[in-house]
Amino acid sequence: MSYSFNKKHVVAIDDFTVDEIKAIMEKAEELVPAAQGDVINTDLEGKLLATLFFEPSTRTRLSFEAAMKRMGGSCIGFARADTSSAKKGETLADTIRVAAGYADMIVLRHPQEGAAKLASKFSDVPVINAGDGAGHHPTQTLLDLFTIRKEKDEISNNHIGIAGDLKYGRTVHSLTKALSMFETEMTFISPPSLKMPKEITNILKKQGIEFKEVEDIKDALDELDVLYMTRIQRERFPSDKDYEEVAKSYHIDKDMLESAKDDLKVMHPLPRVDEIKVDVDGTDKARYFEQAANGVPIRMALLKLLQEG
Amino acid sequence: MSYSFNKKHVVAIDDFTVDEIKAIMEKAEELVPAAQGDVINTDLEGKLLATLFFEPSTRTRLSFEAAMKRMGGSCIGFARADTSSAKKGETLADTIRVAAGYADMIVLRHPQEGAAKLASKFSDVPVINAGDGAGHHPTQTLLDLFTIRKEKDEISNNHIGIAGDLKYGRTVHSLTKALSMFETEMTFISPPSLKMPKEITNILKKQGIEFKEVEDIKDALDELDVLYMTRIQRERFPSDKDYEEVAKSYHIDKDMLESAKDDLKVMHPLPRVDEIKVDVDGTDKARYFEQAANGVPIRMALLKLLQEG
Amino acid sequence: MSYSFNKKHVVAIDDFTVDEIKAIMEKAEELVPAAQGDVINTDLEGKLLATLFFEPSTRTRLSFEAAMKRMGGSCIGFARADTSSAKKGETLADTIRVAAGYADMIVLRHPQEGAAKLASKFSDVPVINAGDGAGHHPTQTLLDLFTIRKEKDEISNNHIGIAGDLKYGRTVHSLTKALSMFETEMTFISPPSLKMPKEITNILKKQGIEFKEVEDIKDALDELDVLYMTRIQRERFPSDKDYEEVAKSYHIDKDMLESAKDDLKVMHPLPRVDEIKVDVDGTDKARYFEQAANGVPIRMALLKLLQEG
Repeated sequence: MSYSFNKKHVVAIDDFTVDEIKAIMEKAEELVPAAQGDVINTDLEGKLLATLFFEPSTRTRLSFEAAMKRMGGSCIGFARADTSSAKKGETLADTIRVAAGYADMIVLRHPQEGAAKLASKFSDVPVINAGDGAGHHPTQTLLDLFTIRKEKDEISNNHIGIAGDLKYGRTVHSLTKALSMFETEMTFISPPSLKMPKEITNILKKQGIEFKEVEDIKDALDELDVLYMTRIQRERFPSDKDYEEVAKSYHIDKDMLESAKDDLKVMHPLPRVDEIKVDVDGTDKARYFEQAANGVPIRMALLKLLQEG
Repeated sequence: MSYSFNKKHVVAIDDFTVDEIKAIMEKAEELVPAAQGDVINTDLEGKLLATLFFEPSTRTRLSFEAAMKRMGGSCIGFARADTSSAKKGETLADTIRVAAGYADMIVLRHPQEGAAKLASKFSDVPVINAGDGAGHHPTQTLLDLFTIRKEKDEISNNHIGIAGDLKYGRTVHSLTKALSMFETEMTFISPPSLKMPKEITNILKKQGIEFKEVEDIKDALDELDVLYMTRIQRERFPSDKDYEEVAKSYHIDKDMLESAKDDLKVMHPLPRVDEIKVDVDGTDKARYFEQAANGVPIRMALLKLLQEG
Repeated sequence: MSYSFNKKHVVAIDDFTVDEIKAIMEKAEELVPAAQGDVINTDLEGKLLATLFFEPSTRTRLSFEAAMKRMGGSCIGFARADTSSAKKGETLADTIRVAAGYADMIVLRHPQEGAAKLASKFSDVPVINAGDGAGHHPTQTLLDLFTIRKEKDEISNNHIGIAGDLKYGRTVHSLTKALSMFETEMTFISPPSLKMPKEITNILKKQGIEFKEVEDIKDALDELDVLYMTRIQRERFPSDKDYEEVAKSYHIDKDMLESAKDDLKVMHPLPRVDEIKVDVDGTDKARYFEQAANGVPIRMALLKLLQEG
């Protein structure tokens, strides 16, 4: 690949240019057979990834570790803060400097916003943000984009609906910003109290991206090429009753999907609770498990490009 | 090997035919040098095993991971439920589908009976039951059989005593069913309140396997070729005093073993508490640590056969 | 290397001769490029290390695992007691015998003094002590020595200051005993209540090693080639006020280091709390992060020599 990937750290999706995102997706496409165990890849033999998870996140941790191991690399790390030396009062900066002395790359998950940015300042080796509280989770966005590209051949020229808690959802903010780099149309589906923040919609306006805001999935469903579902948290509402009343407008089942385009694809960052009923799972619209699996090749691509960088 | 191993999932020992069990044991025998680190085996290079332990089980987890790694493969997973996304309310079915998207095989340990069966329905890749509550633990039975074969050259033509809690013990039920496929003689040694259930002894009767039931190890010891010890749990008795009175009939020490055949072999699934005194450890009758070590080649064989399957 | 390394287990630094320590350091020097991921080393391909951590210790566990993996080996194990079978009442002796049946070497961290010694009696494979309560932690001492050698070309002919809690500090006792095998000068810096114990200073006297004892870092700083800092625990003092008064004599910052030799190197076993201010980190006197990183090649060397042994 002639494209030169000169990122050192990966803190937020905003750090990438469109060309960089495309380069990662192309590399990921090449790596799919190795991600599925169909070919043996040893590109990262002898290399070591530190996976430092100060809060549990099975899916993210396992897919990063899978990515490293599918390329012949190895991992060291911890899955929860209480098996780390943070318990003994060590600062994050010190933990990072020690890990950077052991490993070739660091994946960091931390409950505090800004943790990955801080870590990147103290590390000689690449730091990848795997979620920092209410902050960023850029590899989730990369796998979301990669899934749309795989399912729809391109990201541009699709009408993408995003449903759920759009106010607090870290995942949907990153995804929306990333989609704004491509020629898409967007519909945001949420209760009025959980609308997409102005700071995000202003980015869309500036880039001339068309978007609509509606309050019920049914009001948008028939126009969509992709429906990206997220969870609405019960804790956002004053009472269970308030939640129940609102939440059902952001739930889908097989029957509802009858009114959608034939080639609608439904995505979800997982874990889901009840926003996608299990009767959707068997339909050819369901792509959330494929989406999760896409986390492996996209993270392989990122690790490989950072290591070569 | 001309034998074709066409199992997809491994939920219970009953899933196997005698020929399949023999095929696994023969393959395990071949793999012993690799299991001991004496030769380098790369049969599963590039392959990934997910070890999903919703409850801790060091021995089982470590020996599965050893098995994978001794063949050049890698593992991802968790060792306890609270580092898994189950904590966030994800269903087992969803966790399994995600893991099946990352890995080539899944080993599942779960506190609920039936969990492995359920998991097998949602997984594209082989699921191996590593214990599901009061349910099954088929690889324990395979390593028990393999140990008898290694120690006695064959499984058939041995008189096998099984002692301890025969009513609730998952391990002894599976072992008894498996032994019923071979030409063995059996003696069950337990308090009356913890006898082998009728549903198990009926299988023996149907297959014409001779068995006896006694209440004290001493009443059977001199006839046995193999004595399989298990723990009697204090909780099964109304008081500590009741337990103490009964339990001592199901404990062995070095002196007692004087009256046994010279080539008696003592087995135990471990961990033991006090049912085998430590003075037995140094005798050539003790085979429980070798039995544990046999867990590695037998699991290597199973992983390899499933992967080729 | 013609030197024959015939240690079986590594329980305490006292187990080694000077020649053995030198052999480990020379091997470590050779392995630095592999430790840093610059070359691929497969010396331990197919080999398995069991890392049994009955209490958490990220730094030690991660650097042992890094060491094994940087040589193509693999690891199995647990990071905390509650994912081990000790929870089910298994004795350490039994856990060790089972692990010895799975793996080629065992690294043990245990809260009880004497645990590693006990383990070594029950293991067919090498046991390395990675800390046993108030007991020993020999690989910490090896990496401390290796760091001095790397920074100063040799261990002998240096004036080494050791500051902090010298009464209870396991690390400084081991280090002092090890340094007594080389031609060094030593200054011990501590409050009177936390002085180096007589049993250690008697070893120095017997070997004719010169040493001084002072109560303030400032009283020794200008003579030192190496300053080894350790933490003074608040719990050792009757009140916070007593602690504050005393502790500041055992803290360093950038300004203080102005009065030191130009080529003074500051070390610390980490984690530090406030005994080294962060303004020291950027100076070329700070070597504590390099010291931590040296844990990987020194442990690689030890694992390799034990495996060949």
